[in-house]
Amino acid sequence: MSILIKNGYVIYGENLDVIRADVYIEGNRISKVGKNLNLGADYVIDARGKVISPGFINAHTHSPMVLLRGLADDLPLMEWLQSYVWPMERKLKPEHIYWGALLGIIEMIKSGTTTFVDMYFHMEEVAKASEEAGIRAYLSYGMVDLGDEEKRNAEIKETLKLLEFIEKLDSSRIEFFFGPHAPYTCSPELLKWVREKADESKKRITIHINETRDEVKQIKEKYGKTPVEFLDELGFLKSDVTAAHGVWLTDKEIEILAKRKVTIVHNPASNMKLGSGVMPLEKLLRAGVNIALGTDGAASNNNLDMLEEIKLASLLHKVHNLNPTLADARTVFKMATQNGAKALNLDAGAIKEGALADIVVIDFNKPHLRPITNIISHIVYSANGNDVETTIIDGEIVMLDGEVLTIDEEKALDKVQKIVDELR
Amino acid sequence: MSILIKNGYVIYGENLDVIRADVYIEGNRISKVGKNLNLGADYVIDARGKVISPGFINAHTHSPMVLLRGLADDLPLMEWLQSYVWPMERKLKPEHIYWGALLGIIEMIKSGTTTFVDMYFHMEEVAKASEEAGIRAYLSYGMVDLGDEEKRNAEIKETLKLLEFIEKLDSSRIEFFFGPHAPYTCSPELLKWVREKADESKKRITIHINETRDEVKQIKEKYGKTPVEFLDELGFLKSDVTAAHGVWLTDKEIEILAKRKVTIVHNPASNMKLGSGVMPLEKLLRAGVNIALGTDGAASNNNLDMLEEIKLASLLHKVHNLNPTLADARTVFKMATQNGAKALNLDAGAIKEGALADIVVIDFNKPHLRPITNIISHIVYSANGNDVETTIIDGEIVMLDGEVLTIDEEKALDKVQKIVDELR
Repeated sequence: MSILIKNGYVIYGENLDVIRADVYIEGNRISKVGKNLNLGADYVIDARGKVISPGFINAHTHSPMVLLRGLADDLPLMEWLQSYVWPMERKLKPEHIYWGALLGIIEMIKSGTTTFVDMYFHMEEVAKASEEAGIRAYLSYGMVDLGDEEKRNAEIKETLKLLEFIEKLDSSRIEFFFGPHAPYTCSPELLKWVREKADESKKRITIHINETRDEVKQIKEKYGKTPVEFLDELGFLKSDVTAAHGVWLTDKEIEILAKRKVTIVHNPASNMKLGSGVMPLEKLLRAGVNIALGTDGAASNNNLDMLEEIKLASLLHKVHNLNPTLADARTVFKMATQNGAKALNLDAGAIKEGALADIVVIDFNKPHLRPITNIISHIVYSANGNDVETTIIDGEIVMLDGEVLTIDEEKALDKVQKIVDELR
Repeated sequence: MSILIKNGYVIYGENLDVIRADVYIEGNRISKVGKNLNLGADYVIDARGKVISPGFINAHTHSPMVLLRGLADDLPLMEWLQSYVWPMERKLKPEHIYWGALLGIIEMIKSGTTTFVDMYFHMEEVAKASEEAGIRAYLSYGMVDLGDEEKRNAEIKETLKLLEFIEKLDSSRIEFFFGPHAPYTCSPELLKWVREKADESKKRITIHINETRDEVKQIKEKYGKTPVEFLDELGFLKSDVTAAHGVWLTDKEIEILAKRKVTIVHNPASNMKLGSGVMPLEKLLRAGVNIALGTDGAASNNNLDMLEEIKLASLLHKVHNLNPTLADARTVFKMATQNGAKALNLDAGAIKEGALADIVVIDFNKPHLRPITNIISHIVYSANGNDVETTIIDGEIVMLDGEVLTIDEEKALDKVQKIVDELR
């Protein structure tokens, strides 16, 4: 299949040069970007007055948690988890996870996310939903052993089951990820097993680190060192690790993360809503750490809108440091696109010849995006996910003019409503 | 005219009780709220699966500043003002202001704002645009004399001209506001003149206070007291004053604001983007100060989306205080509706029998608003302005199914683009 997107404002290359041009897609790759491309195409999209942007990479979420959206807010973390999140999660069966993930994926496609990194359970269902919907997905089973050997073995079995399922699925868009939940929920034995298996299988690892002050305190009391020091001494930290949150980090930990080339995923909405704290973004950037962006789950955000997340990423650090020059528009835009791709070693995140065709078209014919002056500024500070009109993933049109083509959206919305009405 | 909105989830009364009901509007007031109202109506709106909410009150903005959207970001405050905002503003003629205000008003109507409080110049043009578009508007000319008597007299003349223009317009929706810009830009003489004239004319006053640390320092150096103490000693502070920002306030100032029943308008996006600081929301609430919500202008936000603002208002205070229970969903929803109405002594801001019919219908048939569980949570944490489908102001349908009925939107968008292309 070939697609020609005509006459848009193209956000071109890693430098985010905005040019008036056409984009030509052949198979799953961008083959040409230029003015007046007179090339035959199976499908032509008119993007006059619209913006052709790299798709957004949601580098940390828990997609089926859309089932828990609005279930509880404004509560202390432990009450939120113990009284609402965990009891609901205990009720979730594979079928529920399938429909939850599908709803989350529809939401992501509609708001311009072309790739997501996920961690939850019954992940085979998320793989199925991702494959059907046509989104690019990096899927991990969230392992928690709390030092219990029997539980550890069960978690390893689940992880290997997911690995096998994804290998058999043999999809160009679905990848397996190891997902040890966090240093405070996983034993050193489990973390070492993950590191060995990751090296052996060449699969990547995602994990939560230093999200709350409490967990850092726990690790210090247990091991006499900070979480990042603890992980590093296990030999766990390498460039294949994508670690979410990184809120409470010491200077020494930042140094280690930079040296080991770990990617940190910033989740500003979740960190704000749960009152977790403010990630030391500027220090991390200065140290050369790759920072990607994620929405986290819909119980702590409460949406999966990367455009909203980009704005928050900028605003949070400006006010926290009383400095309007920090986390400028281009820096946070890159976090949501090319830095996510870098974390995944994925040939996407920027529009350029040869890259994977993961592209969105954003409609700028709207009052809040006019006048058209600074395209990057408008995407970061003025737009939201509803402004995305067309989503192309791996060279396939997954949403066109606001309509998801791969999935029966209405059926998914109704199904999730029924599930949640029954479970509550 | 009568309108019947059928079968929606109604956010009812000041307590925000969510009930399944119909809402009946006669003339410019809500006449009945109840189940299965079988009443003849000129217009029937089917709101099944949708939410009927009070319209949002943007209690502080500078609507024509949409002309400056994306002009400059990520800059130190003074460089932003001196090198970009002020030079552009010097070029603005009345016709530009008209089209800018119209674009801003369209944006507000489309994102569910039914009333706004404005401060800028050439405000007769904003009055015209507001009257034509059908929005409710409280309009002030921003007076700045910097202690210069000649300038003061010119500013007084401008203000009286606006007052006269609005009186003559004799609109049920357009109100005059006195708009002395701020304590650091207005002389005591000007502030005293405003107080006297406000008492005499029974018109209200809006002003900026304590937005940045620098201006507080300036006032202290000049007058030997804090800005709120300074204003209070002039006799300026009464319940007719709506003051924007209130970021840097001492405990004593908060006490004065509470005693004088001044309303403070919170502008979280602007305070964050300009790195101004975090308003002491919890202290203000505990002291009993009425807190409304505003977007500020589109040069420091960069949109006029009150739904985005509500979420920011909640998230900012949770993370700043590391406490997820603060600025809960109901508190911030009230800031955007009934507290704004209270500031204006306006009989709106809540859906109840007898109140003004300023109502929006929000479409919940969207993936990011499902499952439908906690309506207030979804509006605050998951929705954005694009989800608003229908906007009713003063009993008139101003937007229906996403289409603005009062204004030629496309023409306004094109006109503003042309103006800005010429001015830059």
